[in-house]
Amino acid sequence: MSETKIYKPKQISGFPEWLPEYRAVELGWMDKIRSVFERYGFCNIETPSVEEVDALLAKGGETEKEIYTLTRLQEDAHDKDSRLALHFDLTVPMARYVAQRFNDLVFPFKRYQIQKSWRGERPQKGRFREFYQCDIDVVNVDGLPLHFDAELPAVMFEAYQALDIPPVEMHISNRKIIVGYLQGLGVKDIAFVTRELDKLDKIGVEKVTKILTDHLGDAALAEKCLAVVQIKNDFAAKTRALGVKNDLLEEGLRELDFVMDNLQHLPKGSVIADLGIIRGLDYYTGTVIEVRFKDKPLSIGGGGRYDNLAGSFISQKLPGIGVSIGLTRLFAMLLDEGYIKPAAKCPTQVLVVLPSEERRTEAAAAAQTLRRRGFNVELFHSDTKIKKQLSYAEKKGIPYVWFPPFEDGQPHEVKNMADGKQSAADPSVWKI
Amino acid sequence: MSETKIYKPKQISGFPEWLPEYRAVELGWMDKIRSVFERYGFCNIETPSVEEVDALLAKGGETEKEIYTLTRLQEDAHDKDSRLALHFDLTVPMARYVAQRFNDLVFPFKRYQIQKSWRGERPQKGRFREFYQCDIDVVNVDGLPLHFDAELPAVMFEAYQALDIPPVEMHISNRKIIVGYLQGLGVKDIAFVTRELDKLDKIGVEKVTKILTDHLGDAALAEKCLAVVQIKNDFAAKTRALGVKNDLLEEGLRELDFVMDNLQHLPKGSVIADLGIIRGLDYYTGTVIEVRFKDKPLSIGGGGRYDNLAGSFISQKLPGIGVSIGLTRLFAMLLDEGYIKPAAKCPTQVLVVLPSEERRTEAAAAAQTLRRRGFNVELFHSDTKIKKQLSYAEKKGIPYVWFPPFEDGQPHEVKNMADGKQSAADPSVWKI
Repeated sequence: MSETKIYKPKQISGFPEWLPEYRAVELGWMDKIRSVFERYGFCNIETPSVEEVDALLAKGGETEKEIYTLTRLQEDAHDKDSRLALHFDLTVPMARYVAQRFNDLVFPFKRYQIQKSWRGERPQKGRFREFYQCDIDVVNVDGLPLHFDAELPAVMFEAYQALDIPPVEMHISNRKIIVGYLQGLGVKDIAFVTRELDKLDKIGVEKVTKILTDHLGDAALAEKCLAVVQIKNDFAAKTRALGVKNDLLEEGLRELDFVMDNLQHLPKGSVIADLGIIRGLDYYTGTVIEVRFKDKPLSIGGGGRYDNLAGSFISQKLPGIGVSIGLTRLFAMLLDEGYIKPAAKCPTQVLVVLPSEERRTEAAAAAQTLRRRGFNVELFHSDTKIKKQLSYAEKKGIPYVWFPPFEDGQPHEVKNMADGKQSAADPSVWKI
Repeated sequence: MSETKIYKPKQISGFPEWLPEYRAVELGWMDKIRSVFERYGFCNIETPSVEEVDALLAKGGETEKEIYTLTRLQEDAHDKDSRLALHFDLTVPMARYVAQRFNDLVFPFKRYQIQKSWRGERPQKGRFREFYQCDIDVVNVDGLPLHFDAELPAVMFEAYQALDIPPVEMHISNRKIIVGYLQGLGVKDIAFVTRELDKLDKIGVEKVTKILTDHLGDAALAEKCLAVVQIKNDFAAKTRALGVKNDLLEEGLRELDFVMDNLQHLPKGSVIADLGIIRGLDYYTGTVIEVRFKDKPLSIGGGGRYDNLAGSFISQKLPGIGVSIGLTRLFAMLLDEGYIKPAAKCPTQVLVVLPSEERRTEAAAAAQTLRRRGFNVELFHSDTKIKKQLSYAEKKGIPYVWFPPFEDGQPHEVKNMADGKQSAADPSVWKI
């Protein structure tokens, strides 16, 4: 071998990676989320990390600057056929998947996806360039029953509840309410006004009032715009009390009422009708959902209903509703706050001691018996001093150490590392 | 909304994606493989999809042309800081991870990784540009006990056995045998000769004999080179009978003997000492493993021992041994052959019928009771005709349909879709 040049590896900003004891927690989260999604009958799909650039841009919008395209290090003419890029969310790939495999799917199509997405963001604390999202969506042809507007928040709430995180609450509204209300008020530039109203949490009532008053040229009208988005409980009565008459508004109120009604089985105070929930993305057309921690106003997930998912890929109208858990963001934040406690450094439950090379076969057989019974077991890798073998178990956080016979006729023994107690045990019947 | 331009999505060659009923099988494979890896105490890590190009190239070699680099669609000066590329295997990222987190890991470090890798290959049947690999490696500081040379083939064999695939066999050799043997024969250009011997399966004895005879200028010597790689059973006696004396050769024979000895618990005929196993990659230095189907000579996984894993990233010597299952390749091949039977189109076990809007609360409560008891349950999404609800269950392959009371006082009933039998049942005690 030639002499070695050392290339000292650096952490790449925005591409998180964890030590095994934290990765175990993250993996446990994914298992739990997946299990909740499947409990409600959602099937899993996985799309490639890559889509054609044209497919990613088919919807238009301002996502261009965040897309990572791929180039072969030694590019040649052959590569020009199609430009590939990493997907920036799981919605566009799902829309493409549904359009492409339309004839092979059963509708309503209920799918979940737990995958990474990539965005070419500037490096900045809390911004990830590679991150996991856990998405569920229901897509149907032509129309989609309101049933799912209530089901998805319930699934999502259960998923959060399955994790060991601070309590969350779901804020729910319906876009038809704000749009219908503004229509009823005679507001022309509804897109502008909703966008400004969406900033309420960030910049405060005063500033939004000023912006709207300037734009509408009518302080009383601006105040009326602001009134509706501050409504939380008893939303139907309070909204109607504002005296605006509009069919779309009424439809929104009825829909939200149905959703709230069908979420009554969730713990009191965990679901809040909140007409201030707008959610920036323009394509939401009905129910909108945002998940927040109870003790801080941070959004940790959300979603909503859209009229037509895959309009850029297929001529059928495919309405849907989807919610997304920003897993990496949530995990990294709680890790940073010291909230997440590390798991053991390995999944091993029992370390079987190797008494000597002569006794390897017997020790290996004991390990294999325990494995066959479902335990995660390591056989120590050399016949070194027992003290050293115990120290390995301690360092790795292995809870039990198994002593096979050191001499013929001796019993097997097992030591509980937590309390130090050691007792005779039979590998074919022993239980934790 | 503006008029819609349809962008018809195409399948991108080399980036596989499956329908839900096949994805469920793939996901089940990953669960089983992971469970076997954990059964032996391997911890999971996940590295980013991306490494710095310099890290990927630190080892040198000819991998450059297969690397996909990333570029932001709207690149600016800021992006020049570091060039990023998708990893082409899981070994380089693991080496970088171990070097970077050296002080936080417990050695021997036993890790598994189930992740995608990417290679910018020319599109071709059976060639994947995005594919899953399932890797286990053990890495230690300075020296690594031979224990692991026997453990890894056992883990790998169990992983394959956990899958519903045709029977496999493990072919095992030790690089020290071939290298020591050629040294003992006085062959100078050992790299050239092993590379040609490695082609035996592909081009046959005759061609390899000719190439070696031409190169060595000695037909008898060429024949002696060929003799050793054709040895399978009773390898030590047969090799020694060739009359070559060399210390490295003896060491290799002893090591292989230890490995074979410690794999005797595996089914007869599933582990074969096969001195023809060389494995192209130059960095293997001891045990080499190849997994093949019993009924065809195709390699479906393999690995081996290396003297120094992370020499390009850290000054410590880190020997290791690792094996890899080429999951996507294996899955796609068996899918293509029609060997893989589809699972149900969704994980739902029970579809709860919605009798009418008025009875929604009761039906939802029954669904929730069943979910809390661990069943995967869908509540049908509208109060349409029962026939239509049953047809949905059939199309999705849902095995049980639950009928909540259609009138007060009626019992719940459940229908087994396989045999059509329907009987009264209580959601709080019913079992499948």
